[in-house]
Amino acid sequence: MKVLKSINNNVVSCLDENGQEVIAMGRGLGFALRSGDELDETKVEKLFRMQTPDEARRLTDLFSTLPSQQIELCSRIVDRATQDLGRRLCPSVYLTLTDHICFAIERLRQGTVFQNTLLAEVRTFYPREYALGKYGLELLWQELGIRFPDDEAANIALHLVNAEYENSIQDTLRITQTLHDVLTSLAGWPRLNLDQESGFYDEFTVHLKFLVFRAFSGQKQTQKDPRFVEAVRQCYPEEFHCAQQIVEGLGSRSGTRLPPEEEAYLAASLHRTCRKV
Amino acid sequence: MKVLKSINNNVVSCLDENGQEVIAMGRGLGFALRSGDELDETKVEKLFRMQTPDEARRLTDLFSTLPSQQIELCSRIVDRATQDLGRRLCPSVYLTLTDHICFAIERLRQGTVFQNTLLAEVRTFYPREYALGKYGLELLWQELGIRFPDDEAANIALHLVNAEYENSIQDTLRITQTLHDVLTSLAGWPRLNLDQESGFYDEFTVHLKFLVFRAFSGQKQTQKDPRFVEAVRQCYPEEFHCAQQIVEGLGSRSGTRLPPEEEAYLAASLHRTCRKV
Repeated sequence: MKVLKSINNNVVSCLDENGQEVIAMGRGLGFALRSGDELDETKVEKLFRMQTPDEARRLTDLFSTLPSQQIELCSRIVDRATQDLGRRLCPSVYLTLTDHICFAIERLRQGTVFQNTLLAEVRTFYPREYALGKYGLELLWQELGIRFPDDEAANIALHLVNAEYENSIQDTLRITQTLHDVLTSLAGWPRLNLDQESGFYDEFTVHLKFLVFRAFSGQKQTQKDPRFVEAVRQCYPEEFHCAQQIVEGLGSRSGTRLPPEEEAYLAASLHRTCRKV
Repeated sequence: MKVLKSINNNVVSCLDENGQEVIAMGRGLGFALRSGDELDETKVEKLFRMQTPDEARRLTDLFSTLPSQQIELCSRIVDRATQDLGRRLCPSVYLTLTDHICFAIERLRQGTVFQNTLLAEVRTFYPREYALGKYGLELLWQELGIRFPDDEAANIALHLVNAEYENSIQDTLRITQTLHDVLTSLAGWPRLNLDQESGFYDEFTVHLKFLVFRAFSGQKQTQKDPRFVEAVRQCYPEEFHCAQQIVEGLGSRSGTRLPPEEEAYLAASLHRTCRKV
């Protein structure tokens, strides 16, 4: 690969065989290199291949200004996440997560810590990503001596969720906020007693997560089961009414109105999870 | 704490304030100690408190015969699991996991590797525990230079599942084998096309996992919704028949017959997930 620019001793921007910019990382990789030189590929420890030239430029900017130890640490979090989650992560996560963590470190040093008001939801709905966030905090503590509160594990988790579902961070925040709001509204729903101690509660939260993701995914659904819908409406009128309101609320937030079959299924799920009074 | 017995330089068995045996670990902790001496608690890095004297004795036996590096590594896996899973693990997991891993290392050295025929199911149904198993493999590789196949990550995961649900390894294996068999039987079910590409498939597998756990938990359920059951039976006769057979099979394996409401709910879940032909 031909060198485009040596960013620093350990980071080099270069052109791959297809003429696309890639960012290469490796100890001493960039030392004494000039534009046009051939890259010593045996020294490359990690290659970052972004999806657009703009992302490549932003990653180069980031890597040229941030401490290499922090960059390397963030890339270990992403690599571990790719392995543990068992799915492809959108490559721009290297960019967004590194950016996020390095600025969080900066803010922490200045004494500013932001609470994550969605911490509880992140823990409930994205347990695997949250575990990876905790792994990140451990690395930050062990390798950089920086101690973050659990809120930061939730922030890292949200960045990983984005990368899994190729959402923007805005979408992921909206989805998670929506989950939070739905649970709050269910907790206060008259005549239903959503029972957190129920043997069905964990399953219910998983169902809710999938439901909200479907609403925000915008995919058209083609279920047509008017008989099932009508049957559930008659069996569980209270739960059905509640489910309708929730699905309606999801529709106005996400722009996608889920079909009545989703309302019926949610009503049945609610019925199992509510304590009968 | 009074020393009962110094197992080796790093492991000491002692009596706590309630007269119960605990096993203490720490570098140099056991050096030149005799029975009846006072333990230097500032040197203790980790305390293992088992639930029965028999477990304490077995842990002492294990620690006196196995390499301390392996013991310490297993204890790190358990500590990480406790943190990541966010729930209490049955303390005997220190015993069972250490025993398992040390003998797996022994077998590997002798050239024997066992396949885990449930690898795919463990990955699907216990993704968080599997991720912890992979973390274990990474530690084994980095710290002991021992490379295990992914089957071993699944073995570690199964030990963690036991510790979460306080099952015996036999129960966990039976549950996981049952999940495997149910999925296989569904895949071959005439006139249903369980669709792995369906947007509902992941949710379906979660539902199935909770269902099978409920069957094996033996808890009595008090749902009574004959109208809902009858409605689903009429809407989805094919799925209902299939769900009945599955719940019946679960009953004969677990000894607990789940109520018809579970059949109805499973039938509705199946209906969403099957491709219409």
